[in-house]
Amino acid sequence: MTKNITWHNSKITQTDRSQLNEHNAACIWFTGLSGSGKSTLAVELEHELYKLSVHSYILDGDNIRHGLNKDLGFADEDREENIRRIGEVARLFVDAGIIVITAFISPFRKDRDNVRKLFDKNQFIEIFVDCDLKTCEERDPKGLYKKARQGEIKDFTGIDSPYEEPLNPELKLYNDSSTKVSENVKKIINYLKKESII
Amino acid sequence: MTKNITWHNSKITQTDRSQLNEHNAACIWFTGLSGSGKSTLAVELEHELYKLSVHSYILDGDNIRHGLNKDLGFADEDREENIRRIGEVARLFVDAGIIVITAFISPFRKDRDNVRKLFDKNQFIEIFVDCDLKTCEERDPKGLYKKARQGEIKDFTGIDSPYEEPLNPELKLYNDSSTKVSENVKKIINYLKKESII
Repeated sequence: MTKNITWHNSKITQTDRSQLNEHNAACIWFTGLSGSGKSTLAVELEHELYKLSVHSYILDGDNIRHGLNKDLGFADEDREENIRRIGEVARLFVDAGIIVITAFISPFRKDRDNVRKLFDKNQFIEIFVDCDLKTCEERDPKGLYKKARQGEIKDFTGIDSPYEEPLNPELKLYNDSSTKVSENVKKIINYLKKESII
Repeated sequence: MTKNITWHNSKITQTDRSQLNEHNAACIWFTGLSGSGKSTLAVELEHELYKLSVHSYILDGDNIRHGLNKDLGFADEDREENIRRIGEVARLFVDAGIIVITAFISPFRKDRDNVRKLFDKNQFIEIFVDCDLKTCEERDPKGLYKKARQGEIKDFTGIDSPYEEPLNPELKLYNDSSTKVSENVKKIINYLKKESII
C-alpha cells in the first residue's frame, strides 16, 4: 500500500514545537477496566496541565467512537483496529507537540505494545489504572456491567472478555474508593516533571 | 455502533484553548491535482504561522498513508474512507485548538463536503490550488504522472480518474510557474487575519 508514497518532512521540528510550547510532547496512555476511572483521571489531568499552560488533549474511547472509529464494532478484530488507529492519531498529536491523553480500556497487551512502538522512548507513558472488578462493577457509571451480566452486551472486558494487565507500566495507580483523584493526578504531574516533559 | 456510548465533555473548552494559544483553531483544507503544489504551500504556510507563534500541524496525504491509513489503497471506496478519516482527525486537531493544514488531492466534491460538515462555520477553509494539468504533469515531482501514462498506476487523478473542482472554496489560488509560493502564503495569512482566526 505504501508504494509510490514519499514522506514529506515538515520544516517545523519537534524542537521548534517544544520551544513554542515551552514543554515537550508525550502520549499518556491510561489503561484499565471500564469504571476504573480513566476518563475522570484524564479530565482532571487535562485541567491541571492547562493550569500549568501545558497544551494537552484527550482522546477518549467514547468520543473517538462517534467519529474516526464509528465504523468499528466491539469484536476482537475491531477492537484491535480501534486501538491501532488511536495509537496512530496519538502519534500525530505528539508529533504536533501536544501531550495527548488517551482513556481506553485497551485490554490487550499486544495492542498496547504495538502502539508503544510508534513512539520514541520516554514519549509513551503507560498508566495502569488499577481498580478491582467488584469496585468497577459497583460504580458502573454507564450501566454497562449490568447489561453485560444480563447478556445484553457481549465480549465485555472483565465479564466475558479478558483484561491483560500491563507488565511494566510507567505508572500504576490504585483508584479505589479510598483514593482521591487529585492525589493520582499529582503523581502523574510529578512523573512528567521528573522526566522533563513539563 | 454508537449504542452504549456517551460523550465525555472535557473540562477544557475551545475558548480556554484559544486563550492559552492566543489564536483560534481552523482546518485549512488544500485540494488540487498531484503536483499542483499543495504540500509546498502547506510547509511554507506552517513555517509562516510558526513565525507568528501560531500552533499548526500538517496532515499530509503521503505521511498519513504510512500510519493511520496504511490499510487503505487507492480504489474509490478506499479514497473515500481515506478522506473521511483525515477529516475526523482534522476535527480532533481543531478541537485541540490547532490550525490543522491538510494537503490531499481529495478529488471528490462529495467527500470534501462531508468533511466540511464536521466543522463549525468559519472553521473549515477550503483552498483550491488551481494549476493546469499540463504544468502539474511537467513538474511531476514524484514521477507519478509518468507511471500513470504508462499504465503502471491506475485511477490516477487527472489521467484516468476525475478531479472535481470546488464550487465555492474559501480561497482559490493559482499556482503555476509565474506564481511565487510566498505570495500565495501571504494571501492565506491575510485571510486568516480577516477572519480573526489569527
